[in-house]
Amino acid sequence: MEIGKKIWAIAEGYIPAWSHGPAPEFTSHEAACILNAGDKDAHVELTVYYADRDPAGPYPLLVKAKRTLHIRFNDLKDPESIPLGTSYSSVFISDVPVVLQHTRLDSRQAENGLFSTIAYSE
Amino acid sequence: MEIGKKIWAIAEGYIPAWSHGPAPEFTSHEAACILNAGDKDAHVELTVYYADRDPAGPYPLLVKAKRTLHIRFNDLKDPESIPLGTSYSSVFISDVPVVLQHTRLDSRQAENGLFSTIAYSE
Amino acid sequence: MEIGKKIWAIAEGYIPAWSHGPAPEFTSHEAACILNAGDKDAHVELTVYYADRDPAGPYPLLVKAKRTLHIRFNDLKDPESIPLGTSYSSVFISDVPVVLQHTRLDSRQAENGLFSTIAYSE
Amino acid sequence: MEIGKKIWAIAEGYIPAWSHGPAPEFTSHEAACILNAGDKDAHVELTVYYADRDPAGPYPLLVKAKRTLHIRFNDLKDPESIPLGTSYSSVFISDVPVVLQHTRLDSRQAENGLFSTIAYSE
Repeated sequence: MEIGKKIWAIAEGYIPAWSHGPAPEFTSHEAACILNAGDKDAHVELTVYYADRDPAGPYPLLVKAKRTLHIRFNDLKDPESIPLGTSYSSVFISDVPVVLQHTRLDSRQAENGLFSTIAYSE
Repeated sequence: MEIGKKIWAIAEGYIPAWSHGPAPEFTSHEAACILNAGDKDAHVELTVYYADRDPAGPYPLLVKAKRTLHIRFNDLKDPESIPLGTSYSSVFISDVPVVLQHTRLDSRQAENGLFSTIAYSE
Repeated sequence: MEIGKKIWAIAEGYIPAWSHGPAPEFTSHEAACILNAGDKDAHVELTVYYADRDPAGPYPLLVKAKRTLHIRFNDLKDPESIPLGTSYSSVFISDVPVVLQHTRLDSRQAENGLFSTIAYSE
Repeated sequence: MEIGKKIWAIAEGYIPAWSHGPAPEFTSHEAACILNAGDKDAHVELTVYYADRDPAGPYPLLVKAKRTLHIRFNDLKDPESIPLGTSYSSVFISDVPVVLQHTRLDSRQAENGLFSTIAYSE
């Protein structure tokens, strides 16, 4: 079944600059978890906004029908990587409805910090 | 009184693969907390979506009238268990309005990580 | 200015049963943070839902005009206290629009777990 | 593209009164992350609400077109600073649509607590 929205935004964004513990589980990271519960593949375009320069992107993402994609911002490479320790925001435009949740694992210290929130949609 | 929606989705999903501390309080887990504030029992069907295989379910859940149910994803057995250390998403369809919140306790380290967010509804 | 909604729900609820660190800052607790940005006092009725017994309440709360109230569930006494280590949910009905956010501090371990989420409104 | 709302509220607010670790990364703080994805600069007025005194503000914020602003409540100075260890709430009024997310880093202990949530909008 189709569930969700086509436009999603995450205003917080920050990949901690270092990590403790074994990779990849304990690598400091931010993730966008995207659920496509529908019958059609979702083609999603991600744009990254910064504090003091023009936006980067679009980054194309494919979320297949009836699948979830947990993409780490750390892993984005094309057209460019996101620098560590830098404030950013992100916008996702999908061609079919999806649901998006934002998670950060901060392992700069021995014991991790962790948060997650459903993103803003319209 | 009736409060909530009939369709809920959680895009993030990941049960950490190990734990520290006494069970069950400190067992790494994800929970769906479902409030049924209305006068009729809620029959909820949960479907679990994965990155690279077909969805699992439905898992039937009963949330009695004027009651709350805090169900751990770890405890789902029928039709199948959710593997640990694996990315997933979930959709809940209820026959009456409910409210749903998503919580993770990550006790892979000595000191726990913890998050919670109201899920997406429509 | 008036901002918010009159009906709010928190599906998650659990006051950890013990604490580390100096009280009251590091006492394990759950809080409902209620903003009344309007010109009229808000009279809020809180009802607490449990897994296996009838709801408790209403608990009357007063949030004065242009004020915030951060109430700890631990401090609710009348008509009855909320037991520690027990799953619950809560519903808030206000006579004027307010905004409500749910926070938990879990200090059962030496290093705290912490989460916060905007509650569900309608 | 324009995305978001013009009115945002955060009901939780509390800057922990002390910190561990190197500043500014590990200074206990609360942040409002504001995304302006549109083509026009956003002029935002922030008002801070307290438990037992009149609101403070407005604090003027500028979020340039196609930029993000991650502002720490700790850094607000004009018309007045926010006292540490004190409960507050906040309301943001923008002249163009923006998206706002609320984050706290609590480093009162050696290992940080961390949360983030999309704020309330209308």
